[in-house]
Amino acid sequence: MAGRSQKKTTSHPLEDFKVGVDNIIFSVDTTQNRLLVLLVMRQEDPFRDRWSLPGTLVRQGESLEDAAYRILSEKIRVNNLYLEQLYTFGGPHRDPRESPESYDIRYLSVSYFALVRFEEAELIADGVTGIAWYPLEQVPSLAFDHNHILKYGYQRLRNKLEYSPVAFDVLPELFTLGDLYQLYTTVLGEGFSDYSNFRARLLKLGFLYDTGKKTSRGAGRPASLYRFDAEAFAPFKHKPLVFV
Amino acid sequence: MAGRSQKKTTSHPLEDFKVGVDNIIFSVDTTQNRLLVLLVMRQEDPFRDRWSLPGTLVRQGESLEDAAYRILSEKIRVNNLYLEQLYTFGGPHRDPRESPESYDIRYLSVSYFALVRFEEAELIADGVTGIAWYPLEQVPSLAFDHNHILKYGYQRLRNKLEYSPVAFDVLPELFTLGDLYQLYTTVLGEGFSDYSNFRARLLKLGFLYDTGKKTSRGAGRPASLYRFDAEAFAPFKHKPLVFV
Repeated sequence: MAGRSQKKTTSHPLEDFKVGVDNIIFSVDTTQNRLLVLLVMRQEDPFRDRWSLPGTLVRQGESLEDAAYRILSEKIRVNNLYLEQLYTFGGPHRDPRESPESYDIRYLSVSYFALVRFEEAELIADGVTGIAWYPLEQVPSLAFDHNHILKYGYQRLRNKLEYSPVAFDVLPELFTLGDLYQLYTTVLGEGFSDYSNFRARLLKLGFLYDTGKKTSRGAGRPASLYRFDAEAFAPFKHKPLVFV
Repeated sequence: MAGRSQKKTTSHPLEDFKVGVDNIIFSVDTTQNRLLVLLVMRQEDPFRDRWSLPGTLVRQGESLEDAAYRILSEKIRVNNLYLEQLYTFGGPHRDPRESPESYDIRYLSVSYFALVRFEEAELIADGVTGIAWYPLEQVPSLAFDHNHILKYGYQRLRNKLEYSPVAFDVLPELFTLGDLYQLYTTVLGEGFSDYSNFRARLLKLGFLYDTGKKTSRGAGRPASLYRFDAEAFAPFKHKPLVFV
């Protein structure tokens, strides 16, 4: 058993690990009101030809966060993004490579959670690996425990939307209140708040700046275009429950 | 370099890890209004004779959470506790044992965050290892990056207090509103809210049950003893900003 070196012989030998970083990259297609997650097709065993969260194993000298950004930069070109560590999944039996017949080592997954602007994000097809945005409700059975990790990430996304301005990392720079409401409805479901309450609440808080520009779509009246004012938001930064 | 086995030879060799679990165990001494953290004296290199967060390395077949509970049960006897995963610290250069002259392997720390009731918590002295509750502002320079981890944990504690009922895991079963306010002030600082607002807000929310019992301490009027009603709190469970 390579790598199981220890100073003292005890009845409780220590585990050896490889450390993986898996990214849950969410985006919202605001034209179709769909919450999307980025999946890649695995080209190697285990779980060859199964969809998975984009991930990598941590290299010598590399930090966890550097590994997370490396995956992102290999899969997607994007200007703005929000990235944070989500959770570490490290139980035994989560990776078939830990069996003594395989590599005989545990695999731990540090998951990161990212939000990117759909219109800006350009997927990098390397000609070999499949890569695709999947609507959340159409995600297939994934490799490893990735469905479980994704479920955890979706819960975090819902929580974040309620108390932090991550939505503005995902919307275009200028947006209507209808766009913003649609984004919240797409992620949180129809019942989260009615539109007029949502609108009144946000306008009162004063961190949406009316640009004076209008947009007209479909048959409705022209709608005002707003911009998020980060400076005006600052006092709310550590106050939860701002948006709902 | 033992343990650096890989299937393919690449220019980016993968890192091998041992995985540590470090617990930040907070408690509040409500009689002295002090926020405390549990520290242990290291008996081994590196950082021999330095205080550290109680930690362990993950054993073969053990989950991260099991390791976290194992540390707790070795250091402290307690009936009620709150435990959750905090963050994973895994950068290079956080542990001197990763040098090629030592074990030549990276050490990653999955940190857990726990809150225990001070009156109930019994420290387990094994006759060798030092163990002590330290007031947060008196914590010395700790082993590894533990001061950094502790700082992160303290921020999480503050956030948790604002939107979840963790305080009731730490208070005695029956408490006065003054006790509760004191606990919040101890953790969040004097300025977080004035007492009458805090009191009015919490009573209105309806999850504090007045037991009809009174207590009298010092020269003041007898104060009502309350109990936390978890069932009445349920509707607020996913609503942040309940307490402040």
